[in-house]
Amino acid sequence: MGGPEHVQRRMNEFERKDDLDIRGLHIWQDKREFCFGVDAVLLSSFCEVRKGDRVLDLCSGNGIVPILLAGKTEAGSITGLEINPVQTALARRSFSENGLRHVRMVDGDVKDAKQIFAGLEFDVICVNPPYIKDGRMQNPSRGKAIARHEILCTLSDVLHSAASLLRYGGRFYMVHRPDRLTDILDEMRAFKLEPKRLRTVHTKRGGEAKLVLVEGALGGGTFLHIMPPLIIYNDDGTYTEELESQYGRDTK
Amino acid sequence: MGGPEHVQRRMNEFERKDDLDIRGLHIWQDKREFCFGVDAVLLSSFCEVRKGDRVLDLCSGNGIVPILLAGKTEAGSITGLEINPVQTALARRSFSENGLRHVRMVDGDVKDAKQIFAGLEFDVICVNPPYIKDGRMQNPSRGKAIARHEILCTLSDVLHSAASLLRYGGRFYMVHRPDRLTDILDEMRAFKLEPKRLRTVHTKRGGEAKLVLVEGALGGGTFLHIMPPLIIYNDDGTYTEELESQYGRDTK
Repeated sequence: MGGPEHVQRRMNEFERKDDLDIRGLHIWQDKREFCFGVDAVLLSSFCEVRKGDRVLDLCSGNGIVPILLAGKTEAGSITGLEINPVQTALARRSFSENGLRHVRMVDGDVKDAKQIFAGLEFDVICVNPPYIKDGRMQNPSRGKAIARHEILCTLSDVLHSAASLLRYGGRFYMVHRPDRLTDILDEMRAFKLEPKRLRTVHTKRGGEAKLVLVEGALGGGTFLHIMPPLIIYNDDGTYTEELESQYGRDTK
Repeated sequence: MGGPEHVQRRMNEFERKDDLDIRGLHIWQDKREFCFGVDAVLLSSFCEVRKGDRVLDLCSGNGIVPILLAGKTEAGSITGLEINPVQTALARRSFSENGLRHVRMVDGDVKDAKQIFAGLEFDVICVNPPYIKDGRMQNPSRGKAIARHEILCTLSDVLHSAASLLRYGGRFYMVHRPDRLTDILDEMRAFKLEPKRLRTVHTKRGGEAKLVLVEGALGGGTFLHIMPPLIIYNDDGTYTEELESQYGRDTK
């Protein structure tokens, strides 16, 4: 962030422009809203997007996953869906400034996704949903609360929409918390998004998992691969080689 | 194995006595039947058995898990249940020769466990069940086939028996294959054996999981911990320190 463009574009004291270290892309964020973390980076790298794929990102926030996917893949189109208008406005500014003409953001509720995208089918649907089931301990910021807690949408809502908009055999990708894994696998199967790959993410080698990445296939057969664990930090506190690579620093 | 006792006790050319490298314990195995692998060792170390606990091991085979638990824990009693009489005979010989008076083997079908142990309650139930759902590709040995394939009992049968014999809050431990994880977590929850801890087991660092270890609690709350992955071999092909320790070589 910083520099003349930053000053020129700055709309208020809460907004900031962050360099994404990948193909010169940047993102606008508002610190009163949910700002992206390592989860979005891991999700974008976990998604297997083939050339020309039509991709939908649910609970898309400020558009971080669409931007990263635009930088990392040859998707034909990438669509974000987000309910918070502050975030969708930021996303559109970022998409436009980055010249991402195949990427768009749609305002709307994930629970209405089937209606919003009626008649469309996607090859890949991904989501970094609200993780927390318990709605009691909420962030005082409404924007942050709805991004973190299942206030406006539940895991079931997300899976239901994904299952109704994927083509048969299409792939679903989600990042979530380990403590919800039973809910996740159970409900994915219930919505015919059969779990195919699971990867656990650990802050350090030898520690419990902090996140899980899961891939499902609509109508897929029942056989799950558990991938090698993904470690975020080396023992000396630096990012592991894999994380550096996911942050795009090797393709800058 | 080997030595005078081995020769003296040997009943036929297929039987062998294996040293377990823990507190001088040994086990009799018949190579025509299912012989234990790393799975049993991992399961016995994963089980949290407290002093005085009443432990039940389902699908107990030649009694390897009861013997290892006798060596590693202060269980009050350890009971094995196994349907194959060749295996139960071997188990009783091993228990007796090892002087394990608090360990016993019961002949019976896991599907009848509730009736067999009517009126009893266990603090811990563990199982290394048949892993393979598909009954078509079966081992030509009947004994090995029923130990590996869901011919005589399914995952549901095992979980149903475990849930009906555990005390409320009692702990359930299972080793199984990663490809079945969705079945496992889904069905454990259905039987109120709520998954509490999951550990993935990888042959080598950087490889897919080969096994999973899972702990459930009867009536437990919904919060799963995913433990650090367990790695079997170092890059040079030797056992990792953790595996050496699980094989009991540090407590010999």
